[in-house]
Amino acid sequence: MRLHGYFRSSAAYRVRIALNLKGLRADHVAHHLRKGEQRAPDYLALNPQGLVPTLETGDGRVLTQSLAIMEWLDETHPAPPLLPKDPFRRALVRAFAFAIACEIHPVQNLKVLARLRGLGFAEAQVQDWARQVNAEGLEACETLVADEPGPFCFGATPTLADICLTPQLANARRFGVDVAAFPRLLRAEAAARALPAFAEAAPERQADAE
Amino acid sequence: MRLHGYFRSSAAYRVRIALNLKGLRADHVAHHLRKGEQRAPDYLALNPQGLVPTLETGDGRVLTQSLAIMEWLDETHPAPPLLPKDPFRRALVRAFAFAIACEIHPVQNLKVLARLRGLGFAEAQVQDWARQVNAEGLEACETLVADEPGPFCFGATPTLADICLTPQLANARRFGVDVAAFPRLLRAEAAARALPAFAEAAPERQADAE
Repeated sequence: MRLHGYFRSSAAYRVRIALNLKGLRADHVAHHLRKGEQRAPDYLALNPQGLVPTLETGDGRVLTQSLAIMEWLDETHPAPPLLPKDPFRRALVRAFAFAIACEIHPVQNLKVLARLRGLGFAEAQVQDWARQVNAEGLEACETLVADEPGPFCFGATPTLADICLTPQLANARRFGVDVAAFPRLLRAEAAARALPAFAEAAPERQADAE
Repeated sequence: MRLHGYFRSSAAYRVRIALNLKGLRADHVAHHLRKGEQRAPDYLALNPQGLVPTLETGDGRVLTQSLAIMEWLDETHPAPPLLPKDPFRRALVRAFAFAIACEIHPVQNLKVLARLRGLGFAEAQVQDWARQVNAEGLEACETLVADEPGPFCFGATPTLADICLTPQLANARRFGVDVAAFPRLLRAEAAARALPAFAEAAPERQADAE
């Protein structure tokens, strides 16, 4: 398999974690998003959205969108599972993952911040936007797991929720969010980062890290 | 079951379609988003994100996030399926759904447009933003199904892809996008809207429609 990513992309970071948890190896191809390499014609042929990650599955097939890739990994390589067995618990995990992947991440990614800059926003305003989106979104996430004993977001093993949370907390810190306001999320993150699957997927451990 | 929504919310519209396709009845509770009713304490106790939809499942349990709700519906009421059986095809359908639910919808929803207005954007700029986000996002979606024979996005029956597409096209038209540029998407939408499950879920058919 071949994973197209970027060290700092939190969507690519999610898939790196999922591959590691499943014990799957993939070659990593870096596309420098800030230099616009995701808009190169070769890459657009693979992923018409011009986003990372893209997973080439090794048999000529191509998958996009981090959450679709992770659901596919979980269906084709069931152990260890990334979702609980019970349908209601699965829905709670997915709702948490979407609370990050639909409500926070897209509203503070490079593309949206570039759109704001293009409209004449000062850099301080762009950073404020990203910080607020992260802070408000993570506040809701903290509530979603407040009654969960943990140590992970939902139970004793990591799920899609933890896989989405860990990269988002890294973004939040980069934008200056006071993450101490989210003690339950920090506890889940600490449990996750203690696992080699998460630690080895971290942006600073990637070959294209700056 | 009880579905909390708003006639014009495309996320609530998705769940209405899914319930109809599954032949499930739910009581509908409307929360007027433009009047901020989703921020009422009673509703926040149910859904701390202050978003619609929320599904009360009838046994005291509560589900949030439209895609998590639809995956739960599909797992607990398997017929008719909202996803293909083959894992790779499931991943394609989910990637299309996320191309809308993660890349388009969150960047043009009421919350983000309100954020732009709060930063002093003129109404014409806000509308431009929403139109561009819809146009660029749907252009990528058109490519994702270009080689699919149809008539639906992925095959002869509706999936999560069509359920996400139909409400998004309604938004795109409202923001003045020239949707004629997306003939393959329009063909899928026409097939979908011909089904009572989609037709009866349309915003203009809801009790709270204005």
